[in-house]
Amino acid sequence: MKAAVLHEYDEHFTRDEIVRYEDVADPRIDTPSDIIIRIGGAGVCRTDLHVVEGIWRNIAGIQLPYIMGHENAGWVEEVGKAVTSVKPGDAVICHPLVTSGHCLACRRGDDMHAAESRFPGINADGGYAQYLRSGERALIKLPKTLAPKDVAPYTDAGLTAYRAAKKASRHLLPGQKAIVIGAGGLGHIGIQVLRALCAADIIVVDRSSEALALARHCGADHVVLADEGMMSQVKDLTGGKGAEAVIDFVGEGNAVAQGLEMTRDGGFYYIVGYGGKVEIPTIDMITSEKTIVGNLVGTYAELVELMELADRGKVTLTTREYRLEHANQALKDLHHGHIHGRAVLIP
Amino acid sequence: MKAAVLHEYDEHFTRDEIVRYEDVADPRIDTPSDIIIRIGGAGVCRTDLHVVEGIWRNIAGIQLPYIMGHENAGWVEEVGKAVTSVKPGDAVICHPLVTSGHCLACRRGDDMHAAESRFPGINADGGYAQYLRSGERALIKLPKTLAPKDVAPYTDAGLTAYRAAKKASRHLLPGQKAIVIGAGGLGHIGIQVLRALCAADIIVVDRSSEALALARHCGADHVVLADEGMMSQVKDLTGGKGAEAVIDFVGEGNAVAQGLEMTRDGGFYYIVGYGGKVEIPTIDMITSEKTIVGNLVGTYAELVELMELADRGKVTLTTREYRLEHANQALKDLHHGHIHGRAVLIP
Amino acid sequence: MKAAVLHEYDEHFTRDEIVRYEDVADPRIDTPSDIIIRIGGAGVCRTDLHVVEGIWRNIAGIQLPYIMGHENAGWVEEVGKAVTSVKPGDAVICHPLVTSGHCLACRRGDDMHAAESRFPGINADGGYAQYLRSGERALIKLPKTLAPKDVAPYTDAGLTAYRAAKKASRHLLPGQKAIVIGAGGLGHIGIQVLRALCAADIIVVDRSSEALALARHCGADHVVLADEGMMSQVKDLTGGKGAEAVIDFVGEGNAVAQGLEMTRDGGFYYIVGYGGKVEIPTIDMITSEKTIVGNLVGTYAELVELMELADRGKVTLTTREYRLEHANQALKDLHHGHIHGRAVLIP
Amino acid sequence: MKAAVLHEYDEHFTRDEIVRYEDVADPRIDTPSDIIIRIGGAGVCRTDLHVVEGIWRNIAGIQLPYIMGHENAGWVEEVGKAVTSVKPGDAVICHPLVTSGHCLACRRGDDMHAAESRFPGINADGGYAQYLRSGERALIKLPKTLAPKDVAPYTDAGLTAYRAAKKASRHLLPGQKAIVIGAGGLGHIGIQVLRALCAADIIVVDRSSEALALARHCGADHVVLADEGMMSQVKDLTGGKGAEAVIDFVGEGNAVAQGLEMTRDGGFYYIVGYGGKVEIPTIDMITSEKTIVGNLVGTYAELVELMELADRGKVTLTTREYRLEHANQALKDLHHGHIHGRAVLIP
Repeated sequence: MKAAVLHEYDEHFTRDEIVRYEDVADPRIDTPSDIIIRIGGAGVCRTDLHVVEGIWRNIAGIQLPYIMGHENAGWVEEVGKAVTSVKPGDAVICHPLVTSGHCLACRRGDDMHAAESRFPGINADGGYAQYLRSGERALIKLPKTLAPKDVAPYTDAGLTAYRAAKKASRHLLPGQKAIVIGAGGLGHIGIQVLRALCAADIIVVDRSSEALALARHCGADHVVLADEGMMSQVKDLTGGKGAEAVIDFVGEGNAVAQGLEMTRDGGFYYIVGYGGKVEIPTIDMITSEKTIVGNLVGTYAELVELMELADRGKVTLTTREYRLEHANQALKDLHHGHIHGRAVLIP
Repeated sequence: MKAAVLHEYDEHFTRDEIVRYEDVADPRIDTPSDIIIRIGGAGVCRTDLHVVEGIWRNIAGIQLPYIMGHENAGWVEEVGKAVTSVKPGDAVICHPLVTSGHCLACRRGDDMHAAESRFPGINADGGYAQYLRSGERALIKLPKTLAPKDVAPYTDAGLTAYRAAKKASRHLLPGQKAIVIGAGGLGHIGIQVLRALCAADIIVVDRSSEALALARHCGADHVVLADEGMMSQVKDLTGGKGAEAVIDFVGEGNAVAQGLEMTRDGGFYYIVGYGGKVEIPTIDMITSEKTIVGNLVGTYAELVELMELADRGKVTLTTREYRLEHANQALKDLHHGHIHGRAVLIP
Repeated sequence: MKAAVLHEYDEHFTRDEIVRYEDVADPRIDTPSDIIIRIGGAGVCRTDLHVVEGIWRNIAGIQLPYIMGHENAGWVEEVGKAVTSVKPGDAVICHPLVTSGHCLACRRGDDMHAAESRFPGINADGGYAQYLRSGERALIKLPKTLAPKDVAPYTDAGLTAYRAAKKASRHLLPGQKAIVIGAGGLGHIGIQVLRALCAADIIVVDRSSEALALARHCGADHVVLADEGMMSQVKDLTGGKGAEAVIDFVGEGNAVAQGLEMTRDGGFYYIVGYGGKVEIPTIDMITSEKTIVGNLVGTYAELVELMELADRGKVTLTTREYRLEHANQALKDLHHGHIHGRAVLIP
Repeated sequence: MKAAVLHEYDEHFTRDEIVRYEDVADPRIDTPSDIIIRIGGAGVCRTDLHVVEGIWRNIAGIQLPYIMGHENAGWVEEVGKAVTSVKPGDAVICHPLVTSGHCLACRRGDDMHAAESRFPGINADGGYAQYLRSGERALIKLPKTLAPKDVAPYTDAGLTAYRAAKKASRHLLPGQKAIVIGAGGLGHIGIQVLRALCAADIIVVDRSSEALALARHCGADHVVLADEGMMSQVKDLTGGKGAEAVIDFVGEGNAVAQGLEMTRDGGFYYIVGYGGKVEIPTIDMITSEKTIVGNLVGTYAELVELMELADRGKVTLTTREYRLEHANQALKDLHHGHIHGRAVLIP
């Protein structure tokens, strides 16, 4: 099959050819629950840029050359002998983790904390290709309203935003405030999810006025440009007290300190973006009784829930399509901030 | 009345006379809901040492001279005109915060986050004295089994430990692990509360083998001396994965970094002690999906719950009594680590 | 002052003059926290009809003659000596219960289960009058967007619907179903609350096609006429399995048995309406693992939340205004089913 | 293999030979995830008596002849080709439901509400035999401290009691009351679970003073003989208000009405036993705001939790052993109330 393969890290994104479009061996069924997916679309994610830069090499145990692409959707091509819940031809979206389902975390519904798992596109070959090896427990059948190439980015970007926003919605009451830091690929989904799941006032901060316009469209009640006047505007909008929930889709630079400061006493600061550092004296944590919440991608059941929102049009996603052979262009456009919404590679 | 009054800060604890035992004016009823308490016992808390050192001067807006003592119990002496729920002679324990009860936080039961409140012993005169001005909403009537001087330290030390341990008990399932860092004044109460409220395995780490003996007595399943072998012992006791809940009663030095490291992926790190700093890259927060929880003293209703545990003997407290005129001795003994359990001043 | 006074029960609603419009003594401040309200509007509720019929005489300990009216809003006229949170002239809405706030239920935020309380309009004189005696803890200041006469019915009808719908929203996930039985005075608020607080599919059943049209307008995804084909339509709409939440605003006749039947295994049946009886074998409760939830009016904090929704236009209420001297007309119109939305008496 | 087979219903338990001890075909691996268990012990449950009486024939779709026994533990004898988590020789306990794990309920951890499942001993051949066909997802490996024959009854009786008591423990605070109706096979486990998971005061009512003695031993704080003075004793023990949680292990006769009456306003009535009927006017449900909760057997993860409690000795079980060929004796002894604890058949 054809695939866009990563052969070398490129710490500063200087090479012309980041991935090489070439022929590789088709993936094959290994275990009775394996499934081969014909890719309909593979999302291009900021994490892919970090993979290229080598940031994940030690955390995830990546071995080069390998195929990136952890946001995948397509059609079932072939199934292992124990598979009963899908059949060839079914349109499916792939939860990013492939698990056996036998550990206690999985049995409690927390697939994301499975004792053992594969993460195609991170620690196994992913979806920048014509075919992908996934597993029965990763697949969700798509309703006819949703095409694989249009939903692929939900599997990671969307699902991560969904999980954080859902956690916040569990405690946000009418009249309370939610601040979203960053209205980009994940943030604009997070805003829509908050809008769908609770009645909090949504305040969005971003450095780009275009992003803020998108935020408004997604359901933000207030938008604030992230310049020197931001903190005082946020203060005004929250009665001087901060928000019951702050969801930080940036997670680096000033965002972390500001995000914690924008959090009201007794409130929750949700970290989704990364690159920066949390630094706070323990005395400030206890006098404010704040909670800092790390957020991973969501569970399988949460991806089902997100697809239900997408199916009803309560969450929509802007995508930009590239042919798989133009993967390098997609990666560069993302690196240079030229993509609004999410890039999707189509074989 | 007689009181032990703080006239000057003493950053390095060098003076002989930290507080002065002297005559001061009696407190008086100001508002219809005020209540004058005849002190039966006032707990001496590590926070008092920090007050003496001047650490709280900016946070709490303290004006010297003033009377410390925020862990108070005694008998109702006089009541304001609107008071209906207690009468002179009633034995009572005082929740540390005096609130009006009209803000939304109070109406939801979260007294600790009241929009306005007095904190006698911190930002108003406290209980190192014969009498104290408190308010109707702060008082809990004591059952006959409990004497004021024996329970005074529950109001802050006990209640803070209770709140953190109760939060942890809400998610700790049989077979899961709770690590308690520090088996001192708060920690030994926290262990008993965990034992009473859930069936998790309780692992206690402390630098003192005496403290660990107390921890065993309080219900610890495993104790670990906090020396260089600690982290590997904890690893062994938690199957290499860490604990679902870590409650850190130390909050300074290595404890914070170690506490976070001992927390299992998806687990909760509860901060109670203070003095140190939380420092963790955002990427580690998201890949581990840990939650960091600040903990303040508990609500009024939680102090009622703790008194119920004390009444049934499910939580007990070791106290050492000092006459009020020996307040300086009590403060010094605490400063030098010579008190096991909690010191209580008796007028 | 003028008031519409109930002097005699009228079991079958046969008298011309149900209440007598007459001069009565003005209410007076009794306790330091009492407040006299100048009534802006008093809602007329189906419970008032039941009071007239004598149904509540034993449950609530009503003594005739007395003044009905438990859905009140207006302006503060006079305050007791201990009152600090409102002042004369403030526009306010009255939570139906007047409590002292000292019992443990109140301290936990569950005002509705207060150990002691007054319920003006039920067991004390209510708001079918120019003035009402209420208490400081019952009052919520209104934002300028909301006029007393327009919001009065929220205090009981609205708040009861809010509480039940909020409970359901806590567990309703995207893709799950909520069935609302009855789209009348309470039901049409419940539908709007569900729409605001969660993303479940909302199915509404009612015997009136006008009510179903209103339900659509309020945010129902599907409406079903309550005729002989209802159960099979509901079955189709829920994949043959029933709904995760059923909120029954009727609570009498077939509604109860049908409501339980429409509830999915593991789901929740919320009772709001009354008059009928729950009858179900214990074996059916265990094999289905259903939960049956009784619902009272909401807490003070919940009325604040509902006002926030009203302030933002997320919940709206249709009212029909009557002069206080025409109270009998309002009661009769309600009795004969001629009121869409809620009747409000204006002095 | 040898098995005790049910060939005919016996509505009034009049036959000498209820089941026939005879040779039958060995069970065989059908699907890749099937597992053959060599039975170490099979619990004899009151539900088996109801099966014999024919009560379940329509509910469960039983076809005679078949082999009862739904509380099974033993050793893995043979595994299907897709099985990876256990191997022949492993000591295991069998969760009563065998599921594929692909439906959304399973993915959320609610195995008990699986869209499709087998229930060996109810709708498929069970464990009154030498061998049993179970499935990979039903098995929990036993720690060495626990022998199969000693724990078999936990799988249904224990797990049902655990689930109900765990639900109650989630909301029971120190100082609150839990009433357990019936201290028999399930009840005495429920008491121990409450004791382990919360600090509520436990009040147990039963008609037998022997059962009450066992209840005391299991951790009851108060015991009440279920005679004509019971309701007034319970009233006294609960301050005239009833209990925040009532767990009814009887579920028939007066127990249901009394259980509801013993439930405090705002409290929860948990149904575990069956045979009777819930009857309550809707007006009583709303004015009391009670909740009635049906309880099925617990999830796989909950059986793991219960094994953790058993492993630590926090829950213990009294069993009486019978050889499999004496299954009729065991059934009769249970029918006549001669078994204290649980009967277990050993092949």
